[in-house]
Amino acid sequence: MKLLRYGPAGEERPGLLDADGRIRDLTALVGDLTPERLSPEALAALAATDPATLPLVEGSPRIGCPIAHVPKFLAIGLNYVDHAEEAGMPIPSEPVVFMKATSCICGPDDDTIMPPGSEKTDYEIELGIVIGKKANYVSEADALDYVAGYVCINDVSERAYQIERGGTWDKGKGCDTFGPIGPWLVTKDEVGDVQALDMWLDVNGEKRQRGSTKTMIFTVPVMVSYLSQFMTLEPGDVITTGTPPGVGLGMKPPKYLKAGDVVTLGIEKLGAQRQEVKAYGA
Amino acid sequence: MKLLRYGPAGEERPGLLDADGRIRDLTALVGDLTPERLSPEALAALAATDPATLPLVEGSPRIGCPIAHVPKFLAIGLNYVDHAEEAGMPIPSEPVVFMKATSCICGPDDDTIMPPGSEKTDYEIELGIVIGKKANYVSEADALDYVAGYVCINDVSERAYQIERGGTWDKGKGCDTFGPIGPWLVTKDEVGDVQALDMWLDVNGEKRQRGSTKTMIFTVPVMVSYLSQFMTLEPGDVITTGTPPGVGLGMKPPKYLKAGDVVTLGIEKLGAQRQEVKAYGA
Repeated sequence: MKLLRYGPAGEERPGLLDADGRIRDLTALVGDLTPERLSPEALAALAATDPATLPLVEGSPRIGCPIAHVPKFLAIGLNYVDHAEEAGMPIPSEPVVFMKATSCICGPDDDTIMPPGSEKTDYEIELGIVIGKKANYVSEADALDYVAGYVCINDVSERAYQIERGGTWDKGKGCDTFGPIGPWLVTKDEVGDVQALDMWLDVNGEKRQRGSTKTMIFTVPVMVSYLSQFMTLEPGDVITTGTPPGVGLGMKPPKYLKAGDVVTLGIEKLGAQRQEVKAYGA
Repeated sequence: MKLLRYGPAGEERPGLLDADGRIRDLTALVGDLTPERLSPEALAALAATDPATLPLVEGSPRIGCPIAHVPKFLAIGLNYVDHAEEAGMPIPSEPVVFMKATSCICGPDDDTIMPPGSEKTDYEIELGIVIGKKANYVSEADALDYVAGYVCINDVSERAYQIERGGTWDKGKGCDTFGPIGPWLVTKDEVGDVQALDMWLDVNGEKRQRGSTKTMIFTVPVMVSYLSQFMTLEPGDVITTGTPPGVGLGMKPPKYLKAGDVVTLGIEKLGAQRQEVKAYGA
């Protein structure tokens, strides 16, 4: 099942992508895709609905983040060996955890706004895990039971804020518009093997990142289990899981985003995103 | 005005402390103390209400976090010169930012649960800032306009998770029950000079932390303005602002919390907290 939210920012309505790629409205069924709508039971109820019975949405509305009111936006850093190398960081012996401000979440095709004076805004194609059930001290063997599905994420970062301003990475990861999520939340049954998904990202049509979830250091069950040792994962929590090589920071010399750039990215089975980069206030 | 939420965890109702220290129920007026109830307009409307006209709450109910659905729980580290010294960290040249998982938030007198196997659970008395109005790139001069009020916080930490497990501090700051907030949200008009509040924390009645917001490195307006350069601060966001000296980590040898300990703490004008420390599952 491909779940989504469509409409103007802040006024999104829930929808479902039917087999023909058309949006069917879910408002009457679920109100909105809030965290409690992501439980195994709630998803099973949705899956039992015949999409043909749902109202067809006309036109091409804006797409928002497929989850309303994400409680926590967690992130794993340096989760691909070759990206750790290009970033000049040691290969982590256990997952590197940081957080993105939930206020940075936006739709998959919304503009990326560079903070005033930013010279090091960068992109990162990442697989996102969406939690469906409260997870607390869960084992790796059971971890996938707590996952509702997956999303495509651009973990946009300001490298100077992240690395050169003291404190934790959080400072450079949560600027407004730095968290495009979507277009769809694809339920795990439809994704199949989550450790075999191709990923790509281009800037102005130029190839930048090519990778696969195959080369992750810590797999999805490991990350979910690991994080659940440090905090309760709640329905609707999103975990972005690290990026393969090819980020601007890793190029020699580094090649950061600038106003006017167009970033396109996608993950096999999870859909694609497109962001125009703009200067703040432009 | 002293706002609070009372009742069993997850079922709290909004209340107001009257001049005699009794709880008056606000359910009929506000439903709950959700972020939108913290705007200057909403607070002014509440302040115009005569507490004597509100239902009196009988007994001594449990007190919860005074804000429902905190969007972000932000934190400033090493904000007192002498605490930075005892922690063996350099005095920061700009605020050190990290985040606490919102799932760690609890009431001021709820038990502190040590994670399984934890040997380095520690306490930190801190002033918390509560945002009342969306703040984005605000100046220091205007920063207080965006503040609804202040709260007392124990920024409970697991030092091994925070410092010895790789990645950012976030890993040791967001375990369940690591964020007691309250008892009250005291509106800023009632607090007066926020940079002149005495703070204290005892363990089993033994004096551990004594300090004053007077000795902060970065003041409240500086922190609010600073954070708003990196992300949008939203109504209901809580910023915990660093701790004065006396934490367990800073003692020689370090003296961490153990099951059975009782932590009491408070800030002038903001009320007091009391937590019993328990082992997970006990």
